[in-house]
Amino acid sequence: MSAGVTYPRGFRAAGVTAGFKPSGQPDLALLLGDPGTSAAGLFTTNRVAAAPVQVSKARLAAGRGLAVLVNSGQANAATGQQGVTDALGSGAAVADLLGLPADDVLTCSTGVIGEPVHMVELLAALPALAQALSDEGGADFARAIMTTDTVAKTAEADAGALRVGGAAKGVGMISPNLATMLSFVTTDAQVERAELRLLADAELKPRFNAFSVDGCTSTNDTVLLFASGAAGGEPLRPGDGRFESLAEGVATVADALVSQLIHDGEGATHVLLVDVEGAASDHDARQVAKAVADSPLVKTAAFGGDPNPGRILQAVGSSGVDIDPSCIDVWIGDVPLAAGGTIPPAYFSAPALRDAAKAAMQASEFVVRVRVGEGPGHTRVLGCDLSYEYVRINGEYTT
Amino acid sequence: MSAGVTYPRGFRAAGVTAGFKPSGQPDLALLLGDPGTSAAGLFTTNRVAAAPVQVSKARLAAGRGLAVLVNSGQANAATGQQGVTDALGSGAAVADLLGLPADDVLTCSTGVIGEPVHMVELLAALPALAQALSDEGGADFARAIMTTDTVAKTAEADAGALRVGGAAKGVGMISPNLATMLSFVTTDAQVERAELRLLADAELKPRFNAFSVDGCTSTNDTVLLFASGAAGGEPLRPGDGRFESLAEGVATVADALVSQLIHDGEGATHVLLVDVEGAASDHDARQVAKAVADSPLVKTAAFGGDPNPGRILQAVGSSGVDIDPSCIDVWIGDVPLAAGGTIPPAYFSAPALRDAAKAAMQASEFVVRVRVGEGPGHTRVLGCDLSYEYVRINGEYTT
Repeated sequence: MSAGVTYPRGFRAAGVTAGFKPSGQPDLALLLGDPGTSAAGLFTTNRVAAAPVQVSKARLAAGRGLAVLVNSGQANAATGQQGVTDALGSGAAVADLLGLPADDVLTCSTGVIGEPVHMVELLAALPALAQALSDEGGADFARAIMTTDTVAKTAEADAGALRVGGAAKGVGMISPNLATMLSFVTTDAQVERAELRLLADAELKPRFNAFSVDGCTSTNDTVLLFASGAAGGEPLRPGDGRFESLAEGVATVADALVSQLIHDGEGATHVLLVDVEGAASDHDARQVAKAVADSPLVKTAAFGGDPNPGRILQAVGSSGVDIDPSCIDVWIGDVPLAAGGTIPPAYFSAPALRDAAKAAMQASEFVVRVRVGEGPGHTRVLGCDLSYEYVRINGEYTT
Repeated sequence: MSAGVTYPRGFRAAGVTAGFKPSGQPDLALLLGDPGTSAAGLFTTNRVAAAPVQVSKARLAAGRGLAVLVNSGQANAATGQQGVTDALGSGAAVADLLGLPADDVLTCSTGVIGEPVHMVELLAALPALAQALSDEGGADFARAIMTTDTVAKTAEADAGALRVGGAAKGVGMISPNLATMLSFVTTDAQVERAELRLLADAELKPRFNAFSVDGCTSTNDTVLLFASGAAGGEPLRPGDGRFESLAEGVATVADALVSQLIHDGEGATHVLLVDVEGAASDHDARQVAKAVADSPLVKTAAFGGDPNPGRILQAVGSSGVDIDPSCIDVWIGDVPLAAGGTIPPAYFSAPALRDAAKAAMQASEFVVRVRVGEGPGHTRVLGCDLSYEYVRINGEYTT
């Protein structure tokens, strides 16, 4: 596996087994940036935000954060005041071991909602975790944050002389599938906090908001972006060519992580690239694309390999966006399945169109393109199909 | 089977086989009220509204409508101008046969979206359909509007000396499951159009908006309410005791139809009665309840018989309603699973709570109760679980 978060200079990482998972797989991870590392974060919009989300958000807002501790097994959400105490306590223990101020340690959790963090095991495992920190620890880090993920997810990009790396986990949204979307992106660029925030908002936010496994927003979703500055030089600023290059590198890593996350979506056998264009705004386009990507009828049709343009039109029409139904065009791959809001009668009377669309749907990922008018708004949202396996994972598993 | 729409005096109905369905089951239905019958309707909010929805809506708005022709097999949605021509043509043919003005005939369609209505078969079957009209035809009517429904759905109620009847179909939302929610409620009360509209808005709308099989709004959903006046007497008005009694009867029939629809939901093995209280408004309560009822994670947990309070909190928190997470209480049946936004640690450390909630979930329908604060807003939304069978019906079936 590739180095991921330790690909850029100035970062050390590790992953160990604390014993949260019955499987005995690694379940406690730590990422540490060199002194001077700056950080930015994106957090769940779920009103039921987990304790570590509340704590990490506050620390970033106060301008702190150069390390992050991640446990998988308990989400530390819906755990009340005890959850906040545990998040603060585990961060403080890490800070003690590393000789850092307590508020420089962020925490993320993923796992069963409501179950208290197993603090005894966590505290017992911390010394070994700190000991294991290494500038080659990115792969161990990526493995230790996994829950129901079937593969570890890492990515790297070069931005000129700068490096960008990342790790992510999350294939469904919540317990008891021990799932939450957590992503970590690192760079060795010299970037101050305000500029890092710009990068997070411009390059990470739209990408991590543009995919959906099941339409369920976790209580723990977190994306963290760290810049160690180990590459040296003056702090990068927008307008600077190296800043633009870094932005591209961050975008490349984000795209690679999102693609890995959606392809590993719970039970997914196909990925849908839902492209919407011609909307009044990008916001409207996104709302339409999410409606298509999250529709259980579109998702089951994708699982069955059935083009079913009526289901796509149904989802577009009920997206809540004000659309003239006579201006909706739909394609699967390059195959036109609706024009001006009408499905061509040939779709039903002859096999050619349907067979062509079915062929396009055989690919492990395929494009569903929807034009809803002549407006400038457009977007792409990534979704996946709804299979028996999704029902099995989420229905047969009982806590 | 009970009489349904022909239980009230002043209505005749019939159902025949036109040949739209490969199964050879009845697929063309007609309901006719006596001269002077008044009508009111509720229609899909999907922007991609089917041709018969557009036509029927306009006729009701113009104060017309005492008969309705229903075909199952083709939805006549996304069929462009041809679809409107076909809806008008089939209505005109019925009007000719019955000696009615053309705009007194409403039409409803359910089936595959995009496929043109098989007009040749439809027109050929109309004489036999008109011939079969009978004041005992309610059961035939209910059978002929079915698509993937596994049982025909009818209901009756007495409102003093007045009678109310109904029929409905719809177990998923769209093609190729030949599904759409269509409901027809009749009464022999003497009610003028404006008052009938009041009844539709007050008694039918909230009930038919408060259940969800898969969160997908059909292009063809229609609820029609007819009053024949055959019971005689002065037109009923709000404030009149008989009007209130009629409203109760209409509500009883609506509740019975909705319950039959949700229990027959595609693949459903359990019905969830999601009660939300303490919201700022009924609107907020409904948004929270819909988020819980439509969550694929809550639905698969219900299928698996797993209480999983974290998934319920997750759905509440991401409903888009501004809620204080520390004020959320959750019960399944009478079993408290979260209080003040926190899942009691005993849920994880001892089996009693979980086992009690699991036992409550064994019932064919059970209550999920969510309190989100101290506000006056409350509602009940009916949902169902997400099973392998839902995926099979919607995934394996290919058009």
